Amino acid sequence: MRTLFNAEMADLADDLIAMARHVDAAINKTSTAILTGDLDLAQSVIADDEKLDELEDQVDERCVLLIAQQQPVGLDLRTIIASLRISASLERMGDLAEHISKDVRRAYPASAIPDSHRELIEGMCAAATEAAGEVVKLLETRDLNIAAAIVEDDDALDDLHEAAYKALTADGYHGTPQETLDIALLARYFERFGDHAVGISRRIVYLVTGDHSGNRAKI
Amino acid sequence: MRTLFNAEMADLADDLIAMARHVDAAINKTSTAILTGDLDLAQSVIADDEKLDELEDQVDERCVLLIAQQQPVGLDLRTIIASLRISASLERMGDLAEHISKDVRRAYPASAIPDSHRELIEGMCAAATEAAGEVVKLLETRDLNIAAAIVEDDDALDDLHEAAYKALTADGYHGTPQETLDIALLARYFERFGDHAVGISRRIVYLVTGDHSGNRAKI
Repeated sequence: MRTLFNAEMADLADDLIAMARHVDAAINKTSTAILTGDLDLAQSVIADDEKLDELEDQVDERCVLLIAQQQPVGLDLRTIIASLRISASLERMGDLAEHISKDVRRAYPASAIPDSHRELIEGMCAAATEAAGEVVKLLETRDLNIAAAIVEDDDALDDLHEAAYKALTADGYHGTPQETLDIALLARYFERFGDHAVGISRRIVYLVTGDHSGNRAKI
Repeated sequence: MRTLFNAEMADLADDLIAMARHVDAAINKTSTAILTGDLDLAQSVIADDEKLDELEDQVDERCVLLIAQQQPVGLDLRTIIASLRISASLERMGDLAEHISKDVRRAYPASAIPDSHRELIEGMCAAATEAAGEVVKLLETRDLNIAAAIVEDDDALDDLHEAAYKALTADGYHGTPQETLDIALLARYFERFGDHAVGISRRIVYLVTGDHSGNRAKI
């Protein structure tokens, strides 16, 4: 019975890793799409999001069955509850990647990012893809050093988000309202992406160390 | 044992109602604050959000203990899992009300909404406060007619959100970039608020009817 339970807990962990890899691919593709205006790539992110939704349902169903059939307590139960939260965050990160790709599609054949903000968006893409890769590694290894790196990427995203807004309201800025709208939303999507990554990493830190401080996960 | 369990399930339901009332108060206050520029009201929304975070932690802890100690199955277990999801949505709705109040504070003593968009924002405030009140009633009564009303409010918020963006990019619009930024984010916050309300109502519909279709709750 215990062996079966352990196998099912391992399957649950694998499901979350599969979701995280999906998100990692989505954010990498959507970053390339926004920087290059690649419509096909953007379309593939939009089409693939459904698969992530299915994975989330699978995780949720597995969690409910695990609790009902195995009646776990203690750390096992908390791991299952955390998995429910993590799957919701990963699903949401996929939605954000999809939103960005929809911006690419709407703007096509023009670019969705004006020259005034290209460097800032490049920075956000870099920090977000780093964070997405680290979330995969954290779920695979439970190495807490990775959690610290995710917090750093989130700090970078927060700074870039603020810088993007400041640049929009600076004296020398003369973008069109459409450009202002696009940048406002893009910066917001990337900032939320970082929040979700930190939320996931705090839940993992809690499971590994039992330390609940700083565990107000924003999901 | 069963009586104790039923009492604890009732406490859990009461906790969610308390959270929903808190969100209802926050969205009412933040709506008044954004329409009137009332700084004190905005500050009170920002200060009160911490209480909602505490309520969320309390719900989460209660859910974990209920599962561990009572080992529920079937509908009871699904109700507890749904409660975890609903508490996360309510907490997030509180965050959105707080974001709006922070916009009021940043713009003060000026208004955070330009005349060009006042009517649209009034409409969003009306739909959001209606939805917030309906979420309270739905949790109190489980009356499924209310779920339909919440979907209608969300549709109204989606339409107003789109209209706000269209107005920002229309030929006759001459707002400053700061105004464009403010409206872009405000409209997004209200739109997300509606999404969370619908997510909650779908989870309740599922618990009452067992109908999972349309239950891709966007939380």
